[in-house]
Amino acid sequence: MKLIRYGQVGKEKTGIIIDDVKYDTSAFGEDYNERFFENDGLKRLKKFVEENKANLAKVSDDERLGSCVARPSKIICIGLNYALHAKETNAPIPKEPIIFFKSTTALCGPNDNVIIPKNSKKTDWEVELAVVIGKKCSYVEESEALDYVAGYALHNDYSEREFQIERGGQWVKGKSCDTFAPLGPFLATKDEIENPNSLNLWLKVNGKKLQDSTTADFIFNIQQVVSHLSQFMTLLPGDVISTGTPAGVGLGMKPEPWYLKPGDVVELGIEGLGTSSQTAVAYKTEK
Amino acid sequence: MKLIRYGQVGKEKTGIIIDDVKYDTSAFGEDYNERFFENDGLKRLKKFVEENKANLAKVSDDERLGSCVARPSKIICIGLNYALHAKETNAPIPKEPIIFFKSTTALCGPNDNVIIPKNSKKTDWEVELAVVIGKKCSYVEESEALDYVAGYALHNDYSEREFQIERGGQWVKGKSCDTFAPLGPFLATKDEIENPNSLNLWLKVNGKKLQDSTTADFIFNIQQVVSHLSQFMTLLPGDVISTGTPAGVGLGMKPEPWYLKPGDVVELGIEGLGTSSQTAVAYKTEK
Repeated sequence: MKLIRYGQVGKEKTGIIIDDVKYDTSAFGEDYNERFFENDGLKRLKKFVEENKANLAKVSDDERLGSCVARPSKIICIGLNYALHAKETNAPIPKEPIIFFKSTTALCGPNDNVIIPKNSKKTDWEVELAVVIGKKCSYVEESEALDYVAGYALHNDYSEREFQIERGGQWVKGKSCDTFAPLGPFLATKDEIENPNSLNLWLKVNGKKLQDSTTADFIFNIQQVVSHLSQFMTLLPGDVISTGTPAGVGLGMKPEPWYLKPGDVVELGIEGLGTSSQTAVAYKTEK
Repeated sequence: MKLIRYGQVGKEKTGIIIDDVKYDTSAFGEDYNERFFENDGLKRLKKFVEENKANLAKVSDDERLGSCVARPSKIICIGLNYALHAKETNAPIPKEPIIFFKSTTALCGPNDNVIIPKNSKKTDWEVELAVVIGKKCSYVEESEALDYVAGYALHNDYSEREFQIERGGQWVKGKSCDTFAPLGPFLATKDEIENPNSLNLWLKVNGKKLQDSTTADFIFNIQQVVSHLSQFMTLLPGDVISTGTPAGVGLGMKPEPWYLKPGDVVELGIEGLGTSSQTAVAYKTEK
């Protein structure tokens, strides 16, 4: 299944995509949140859709999409998980996954504007494959890790490099601004993706392709990442794990880094997980 | 007011402490969570208690206490916010607040056992003053920052130093294990605490006082911390900000660091915010 959330910010309704057509599933009566995943929501939703397909209302393509999952307990990100990206940022290849968090308030719709934060000079892009957890877990083995995954989604892990690197330590400071986590267009359930560790992913700024790689280049694959994280914290249903970005971010540009300015258009996509696009806008007191 | 949550893990009821006696406030019908703080819950609870005080059932002192606030959207911690603690860990005095997150799954009751994680050799203690946010905010000035604070609570920011420092970067990895965030005994609303930037705080292990300081020694006071954080992310009602620990942690012990082992008893307290106590236990597959 391909799950979507759509409508006004903060009042998103649930939906589903079947054969490229969006349908409303509000009548199912549950948001796509921790409780939904925890209580076998995916299986129940599938049954609901099978039984009610003829009666589901179509959703207009004009509707805004929200984040494809409701606010999770946490967004965990993996740093430097592609060798060429580590190299472009002059960082060594990590020996085990580097992890950091992103405030869940950063979550937004896949095509919402990205707000360049107040006082930001270095707002940067990062196309990433996001994993959504389906079942609570801790201390899981790599061989069992995918049993705890609900599905996958496209994510742009926006990053303010000055906040992240030059403002006194710990990356979360540059990862957590509002609109820094557009997630979607949809959550693809696990069965939709044959091999998540071998998907092409790309990102363009103003039409120019800057990131172009494959998750086959992960230093740590999804099983390793989920298992590793679960050694250090309990993962909850609905939690989002963003698996790192390949080379081609603003910070790594030669001869020198460059960053987003108002009006720039960022487009990105992952094989099987759709595309998204954000337009950069300046921060305004009245948003 | 002094707010408590009590009862079985995951099924906590709400209560209040008046003149050192605990009363049940379940009839108020709301948990102390984001929605409660967002919708003027403190003011409404006060009115409820005034109108119903005679009918409130007492809560036995034998009841387990849970975290004094329900699971927040995030737990943000400030690193190295006392000069002597920075010195004991051989770190420079920060020029602006160092921030990191703790997984909200670490939250537990103030007197619950602290579980030494699987494969942990360096489980350490950190008495801290926690601030609970009362109103959504971003980009707040220092002069207005306290307007967005609901109250204060005692927190022990447990830290696994090997996970935090020796396992590949970003402190969240050593801060997020289950039971690593005992919060409470109670949330003291802002009016209960005359000056949160001048409170004694202490921590003992097996009866020996190891941390003994005052929040007057903050490098960055509460107004500065709240204002600073709000430049980088939106703070939500119920969010917990832990303001850093003074000197005297296991990592800083001379002639060499030492850490918790099963059976060790940790007691801590902050002036006006009560005391808590955790007994260290080994991780077991069946908890």
